[in-house]
Amino acid sequence: MSNQVRVAILGATGAVGTELINLLIERKFPLKDLKLLASPRSAGKKVTFQDQTLEIEAVDDNSFDDVDIVLASAGGSTSKQWAEKIVAAGAVMIDNSSAFRMNPDVPLVVPEINPNDVHNHKGIIANPNCTTILMGVAIYPLHQIQPIKRVVVSTYQSASGAGARAMEEVKTQSEAILKGENPQPEILPYPLAFNLFPHNSPLMDNGYCEEEMKMVNETRKIFGDDDIRITATCVRVPVLRAHSEAVNIEFAQPFPLNKARDIIAQAPGVKLVEDWQNNYFPMPMDATGKDEVLVGRIRQDLSNPNSIELWLCGDQIRKGAALNAVQIAELLVHDN
Amino acid sequence: MSNQVRVAILGATGAVGTELINLLIERKFPLKDLKLLASPRSAGKKVTFQDQTLEIEAVDDNSFDDVDIVLASAGGSTSKQWAEKIVAAGAVMIDNSSAFRMNPDVPLVVPEINPNDVHNHKGIIANPNCTTILMGVAIYPLHQIQPIKRVVVSTYQSASGAGARAMEEVKTQSEAILKGENPQPEILPYPLAFNLFPHNSPLMDNGYCEEEMKMVNETRKIFGDDDIRITATCVRVPVLRAHSEAVNIEFAQPFPLNKARDIIAQAPGVKLVEDWQNNYFPMPMDATGKDEVLVGRIRQDLSNPNSIELWLCGDQIRKGAALNAVQIAELLVHDN
Repeated sequence: MSNQVRVAILGATGAVGTELINLLIERKFPLKDLKLLASPRSAGKKVTFQDQTLEIEAVDDNSFDDVDIVLASAGGSTSKQWAEKIVAAGAVMIDNSSAFRMNPDVPLVVPEINPNDVHNHKGIIANPNCTTILMGVAIYPLHQIQPIKRVVVSTYQSASGAGARAMEEVKTQSEAILKGENPQPEILPYPLAFNLFPHNSPLMDNGYCEEEMKMVNETRKIFGDDDIRITATCVRVPVLRAHSEAVNIEFAQPFPLNKARDIIAQAPGVKLVEDWQNNYFPMPMDATGKDEVLVGRIRQDLSNPNSIELWLCGDQIRKGAALNAVQIAELLVHDN
Repeated sequence: MSNQVRVAILGATGAVGTELINLLIERKFPLKDLKLLASPRSAGKKVTFQDQTLEIEAVDDNSFDDVDIVLASAGGSTSKQWAEKIVAAGAVMIDNSSAFRMNPDVPLVVPEINPNDVHNHKGIIANPNCTTILMGVAIYPLHQIQPIKRVVVSTYQSASGAGARAMEEVKTQSEAILKGENPQPEILPYPLAFNLFPHNSPLMDNGYCEEEMKMVNETRKIFGDDDIRITATCVRVPVLRAHSEAVNIEFAQPFPLNKARDIIAQAPGVKLVEDWQNNYFPMPMDATGKDEVLVGRIRQDLSNPNSIELWLCGDQIRKGAALNAVQIAELLVHDN
């Protein structure tokens, strides 16, 4: 792929789409051309990009003819609708939806974990689920030293995972509740302000929700290890943008704590945040807007000599979605 | 103890103290006399109790002379300061603080679990930690059928655990943040509105905080089983009043899901809340003001055939504190 790349963002007006534009600028992505695509409803809207004003175009059959990379972030059905056209036009689709993630022909990539998998694409590369990316970046460095046997994870997921409108709903709902009103939720199924609830993705017959099964299945695919046993409880909390996770990690034998801490401190995409004196550890407010996954509270599990506990926070829109997609695009550009 | 009981509430102006008064009325506790005690700072304040107006009295050396039961909820140092005087006066102290919980001479009681332990007191009975009570009520019925080997729990704890002023702080902080301001926390160490953080109780050398070690040690004492292995991650979330917990429970062999569900549905102090069609499970907003611990999302753990997952919410001020204390007082009255 040439060093001057023609990029299209499909779903340019959403929370992730907006962040994709910011990241392409911030990271000086070698852009030749940027095309912002969205549904006809959003067409004509203007977006300022550096010193230019770009107009959102309605996506159509010819949108991808002069494009090298499509960053797709408009939901699974939109990705499915346009994937064939994108590939036929000779572009590579980096898809933020779950539509193709478990397809054996589609690499599922976290650049800090399995960068080489990008080269095995047949036109589509999938960006993993947000909670999966954040956990993977934090625990893969440990897995490389001693294979992880089992993970028990509980998540604390922000409203941003449900999109910009859900973030707005939490704010307006909070305002209304503080005024003594009893607002009805419109975007999320239940009130999230001053409340929380198990993740609202569809439930499987096994009692897990889709979000939890993504953590189970996608982690295995990204790590290239089908033996890791994972159980997850995913929960939405009234936080706007960054996700948190409490992760219990079991190995075949004890993992020395100091070693774990050293590895985490040096791992790519991770920042060790531990101030034991001040009881200060990763918090969503500190992870917001950051590229790194903040990891801390690394402890020996008192209930199992072979397990350790850790706590992490990461920006759901950035590393959990847009940043990871742009990093994949960078791999495509730099490795060719 | 006679059926007409003289009760004093020590710490009558706090969040739990206020709820204690409500519960004594609601549950028609056989009161002969109610004395409301607090620090000299709060003395003279008036509280309406049914058709009477009661005045808060400053606690002093003679406060307990004509009292049968003292419900203490003014913090550990106050409990330690007055315990000897209370016992010397012939009253029984039901202490909501952590001061005496692990003292081998002090029963630690959850009436649904170990009601008979109340009779072994030497003047003091301890009320367990809130998260410990809520988890215990939910999982003890399973433990009775098949002994629990290990628990991995993550908590989602409301502001009320840090008292009425912390609840107020979350509200004023939310208001300020919604106005675009950047408020500094005063009661809690870090901003909790639209944020969350690992529990702010003091950290032990093993990396666990006090709140987490309470779940480990108190559960063992209440269950009368020192073999249960427990690990906990306690987290404060921007919810006002009810706590939630994601609990992974390991047995020596598989626990049939339908059996678990039947047991939970019939257990005292527990309400099974599971609407799989509507993805509706326990939420803090529904647990607020309720006596029962709401339990749901009972699932087979995919990572271990001998483990199940469950999710619970309970009112921290009610069953997590005041209600449990009043239930202990009721046991003292009815069993004598």
